[in-house]
This record gives sequence, structure tokens and C-alpha cells, in this order.
Amino acid sequence: MKLASLRCERRDGCLVVVSRDLKRAVDASHLAGNLLDALERWDAVAPGLERLYTALNGGGVAEAFDFDPGACAAPLPRSFQWCDASAFLNHGRLMERAFNTAPIPNFDTIPVMYQGASDDFLGPHDDVPLPSESLGIDFEGEFGVIVDRVAMGTQAPQALDRVRLLVQINDWSLRALGPREMASGFGFLQAKPSTSFAPVAITPDELGDGWRDGRVHLDLHVAWNEALFGQPNGGEMNFSFGELIAHAARTRSLGAGAIVGSGTVSNADRAAGSACIAERRVIEVIDHGAPRTGFMRFGDRVRMEARTRAGEAPFGAIEQCVVQAAGEQA
Amino acid sequence: MKLASLRCERRDGCLVVVSRDLKRAVDASHLAGNLLDALERWDAVAPGLERLYTALNGGGVAEAFDFDPGACAAPLPRSFQWCDASAFLNHGRLMERAFNTAPIPNFDTIPVMYQGASDDFLGPHDDVPLPSESLGIDFEGEFGVIVDRVAMGTQAPQALDRVRLLVQINDWSLRALGPREMASGFGFLQAKPSTSFAPVAITPDELGDGWRDGRVHLDLHVAWNEALFGQPNGGEMNFSFGELIAHAARTRSLGAGAIVGSGTVSNADRAAGSACIAERRVIEVIDHGAPRTGFMRFGDRVRMEARTRAGEAPFGAIEQCVVQAAGEQA
Repeated sequence: MKLASLRCERRDGCLVVVSRDLKRAVDASHLAGNLLDALERWDAVAPGLERLYTALNGGGVAEAFDFDPGACAAPLPRSFQWCDASAFLNHGRLMERAFNTAPIPNFDTIPVMYQGASDDFLGPHDDVPLPSESLGIDFEGEFGVIVDRVAMGTQAPQALDRVRLLVQINDWSLRALGPREMASGFGFLQAKPSTSFAPVAITPDELGDGWRDGRVHLDLHVAWNEALFGQPNGGEMNFSFGELIAHAARTRSLGAGAIVGSGTVSNADRAAGSACIAERRVIEVIDHGAPRTGFMRFGDRVRMEARTRAGEAPFGAIEQCVVQAAGEQA
Repeated sequence: MKLASLRCERRDGCLVVVSRDLKRAVDASHLAGNLLDALERWDAVAPGLERLYTALNGGGVAEAFDFDPGACAAPLPRSFQWCDASAFLNHGRLMERAFNTAPIPNFDTIPVMYQGASDDFLGPHDDVPLPSESLGIDFEGEFGVIVDRVAMGTQAPQALDRVRLLVQINDWSLRALGPREMASGFGFLQAKPSTSFAPVAITPDELGDGWRDGRVHLDLHVAWNEALFGQPNGGEMNFSFGELIAHAARTRSLGAGAIVGSGTVSNADRAAGSACIAERRVIEVIDHGAPRTGFMRFGDRVRMEARTRAGEAPFGAIEQCVVQAAGEQA
């Protein structure tokens, strides 16, 4: 099943069911007020959504209309929780060199994860307003899961059972601000502006064996200004999503609709390229003694699309442009 | 004006207006579905709430009933954003010694702030379930503000104008987990279980000159198992709430209902005592070479109440008991 939130008069968007091929959609507002509402009543709401999805794929829904990713907000335009890990060891080790920070203790045995802002997510085609090019504007291609309620102390296998939807994420980062916030010990805050999401959230069964071991085994194709930048595979996560959810839930429960991210997808095989600029820059430092690639400029575009072996893009694509933020508008 | 959210069949509680003396309350559900909804439509909703408040204080509301703090959820049982600073330099410097961490760069000129979990706040009398006494269970008495929407790049004076409500907070902390999460650079996650709030959120005018310079100039009385532990004053914040809000909004906008906290209230004058155990322990280390005070045990109670010079408690009191969390309940 594939779900999206179209922009409408409601702050949290209007829920639609989207066909498997992302060509058609149908309003699902009669089943749930929005996607967050659907997640909070999942057992009651999901069967109706599934029936609508089956009918839509069969061409049997009179009210269906053409699906426009450009009309989408993030699947959850906002949520009550967003936690993002750094579960690809290759990325983490390179970033330690990029930021010139001390090795994170137990990085390979205990997940690292930061609490992100969840009140203002961006849609797949939204412009990305940022205050200055000097902040080191970078994209980060990731996968994520949206969970049902998770009780405190839930272990990884049971935590994985709480996954309801999978998402594809662009976790925007401001690299000039990251090292200072890491050095403070309080973690990322200004270094993480609003996070963006691909058009549709999908149930795990949509990926077939592309979803296994609690990981998304798809290549994440990333293009910067139309040039391929990387296509690392999500299967190389050092921790499964079950382990990441359990980590987040160790000392508190997670509400329905909480989103847990993988961190930047990254492969040890350099031929895969990178899903963020900072990683390429540190590889350049290793190879050449200095970075050769700059960060993003206003007007730059990034495109991210996870692909199956058959070349399908189950989440649709993120296609965004970085722009100068307007001045203060309280 | 004073507002609270009573537990009811709705996840986000039922909004009530509470009398100035915290003795009486009246349902305000006809004005807003819940407090978050009220904040999102503040200009439209606030005048009606104010009229109800005036009538309630005058004794002229037939539907009024006795206010029971024990029936309260947090004023916002959940919100889309919670950012907590460490704005009392005295506390920050002592905690560096407690955690044996390097001095935070620019600690006195740039606020430090972590993104907190906002999906599962606790009410003023809720038990606090935690997995183990070995985690170093500690309370942290704080003040906080709830803001209207704040645009990216808003400066401190204008940011202060976006404050709609003041709150009193117990930011529970697990000290055994803090240093590792700080060392990771990703900040607090497991070290910060669900945060608790005093019964009522109040408009700044309720404090008279107790709210000035963007600070809450009240003593925060903290008692651990009925013994006074500290009564530091909130006026000693190194940064105003305007500066803290502006810090959070530097690279992104904040949605209505975002909560920004002061960090543990702490005074340079030792006679004020402390609002968290970790701070007392590090003072003991300084004075005696080792801590003498342990952290909380299951069954321990904490009480926090900000008081005016006249001895009034404008937010009501937080009165909580720490308990062993039940096992996994997915």
C-alpha cells in the first residue's frame, strides 16, 4: 500500500491512497483525517485503506485522479517525533575524519542517534529555504520507518514488528554548524534544518525481498544538478531498523507516527559514490589532501530516488532546489 | 490567564481555563479542541479564553468546577517540538565537572540547546516509569515558554514577542547515559526520558514583574522526599528566552506550540541549593573529593513549585514518584 498527503486547507494535508505505479490516487479522507490519525488508529483504518488500494490498482475506482508528486506535502507533514541514526559505519567513520572529531565510543556496537525537529517537514518538490550559502549546505539521502506506538523497553525483534510504513528521506544538513554542535555534546540543532521526504510512504510488503533483515535493500540514486552523485545500497546498515527503534525506546515509549531514520546511506565500495557531499569531500581529502567539491549554492538542485533491480522507484523521487530564505517574517 | 489540559477520552486532553488561585476550572472545549489547537489559532481563540478567565475569577461561571491538579495531563500532553537549553552558566560549568567533559566552546556567548522528545509528556502528578535505578535517575527543575509560529531568522526581541505561555518543567535525566551520548556528539536521547510539566500554563502577564527581560524571576522550590533540596531563582539565566527562541529558529521555522526550556535553574549563590542532584553531587566532589548524595530510587518523590515573593505558586506544583517501568508491552 502507498500513501501520500496532498497539500490542502488542512495543516496536516489530505490523505490519499496512491497506485503502485504512482500514476493514480484517490482521496481517503473518509477513512482518516490525515496520515498521523491513520497511524494512531492503524488496526481500524488500515483494512479500509488496503481495500481502496486494491481497487485503485485494479482500475476500479471512479473517483481516482492523476497523482501529482508536486502537489504533495511530506507523507507526515509533521510528527511528534523524529529520531535519526547514523547506522552506516562507512559514513560514520568518514564523517569523523571530515569533522576531525574523536572516534565515537562503541560506534559499531551501540547506535548513535540524534533527536530531530519534526514540526515542519518539507514535501518532495518543495524549495529548501536556508539563510546563507556559507553554512555548508548539504543533502543526506536516507531511508526511514514510521512506527506504531512502541512501549519502553521493547526489544529489536518486537520493535521491527511495529514498523508500519517505510519512507525515503533527504536529511538536510549545514556542515559549517555541525562540528560546534557536536563539540557541545548537546547534538545537532541549527545544523539540521527541516527534513524532506519522498512523495509516498509505503507498507514494507511493497518492497518484496527488498525489505529484509530490517533493512531497505535498494540503491538510492542521488543526482546533484542532474549529475549522478552516488547510488549506495541501503542493505549495508550496521544496525537494523529494529535495533534502531529499540535504541530509541530504551528509556521511553514512542508514540504512533514516530519516524526513525537510517542516517546517510553509504557503502564501503567507493564505486557506489556518496549520498551526501561531506562524504565525497573527505574522500577527496584522503586522496588528494584537500576537498575539491564545494557545498551547495542557491539555485542548486538535488534529486533522490531509490530504485529496485527492475528500475522502479517505489517511493517516487525527491526533487528540490535550495533557495535563499526570506528575511524575518514573524 | 491560566490553562490546563484535563485527561479525557481525547489523546491531547480537554482544555480548561483555571482560576488565578488554581481553585476552580471551566471547560473550554467549545473554544478549541485542545491547547495545541488553541495555540495554532491563538489570535482567534485567546480573546474568548480571556473572557472566560475573567468571568471565572469573578465567580460568575455556573459551569465551573473544582480544579484537580491530579486530573491534569501536561498542559501540552504532546507537541511537535521541544528544545531545551542550558542557559544557567553556573549549572553548565558544574556539569562539565560532573561529567568530566571538555569545556563547551563559546558557552557564555552562544546558547547550547538539545532537541528533546515531545511525543509523550507526563502530567504533574504522573508516576515516572524508568527501567532501572542504575541509570542515575535525576530531576531537573526548569522554566519554559510555549511559542506561536516563529519564522526562520527571527531575532531575539521579536522572538520574545512570540511567547504565548510560560510553563514549569521537570526535565527528567538519566545521568549514567548522559556522558556517552555527549561524547558521541549526537546529544541526549536515551538520557532524556519523558519530560513533565506543572499543571497550568500561564500567560506572561500573570507574573507581573516576575516576567521581565525574557526571564522568569521566581524561586523554584524543589523538594526530594519532602526535604528542601534547593530554591534557585530563574532570573539568573545567562540568555533570555528571546535569545533561546532565536537560536532555535536560526535555520528553520518553529511551529505554533513549540516549547523552549531554560535548562536547570541554578544560581551562583550556593545558599540557593540545586534544582538537580547532579549539581549537588559535583559540589560535594569539589568540597569533599567525592559525591555523598546518591541518585533517586524507585519510590522516591520530587516536588517542584515556583513561588512568588508573596508565596503564591502560579504554575501549581509538580509532585511525582519514580517507579519501576513495567516490562515490554508492545
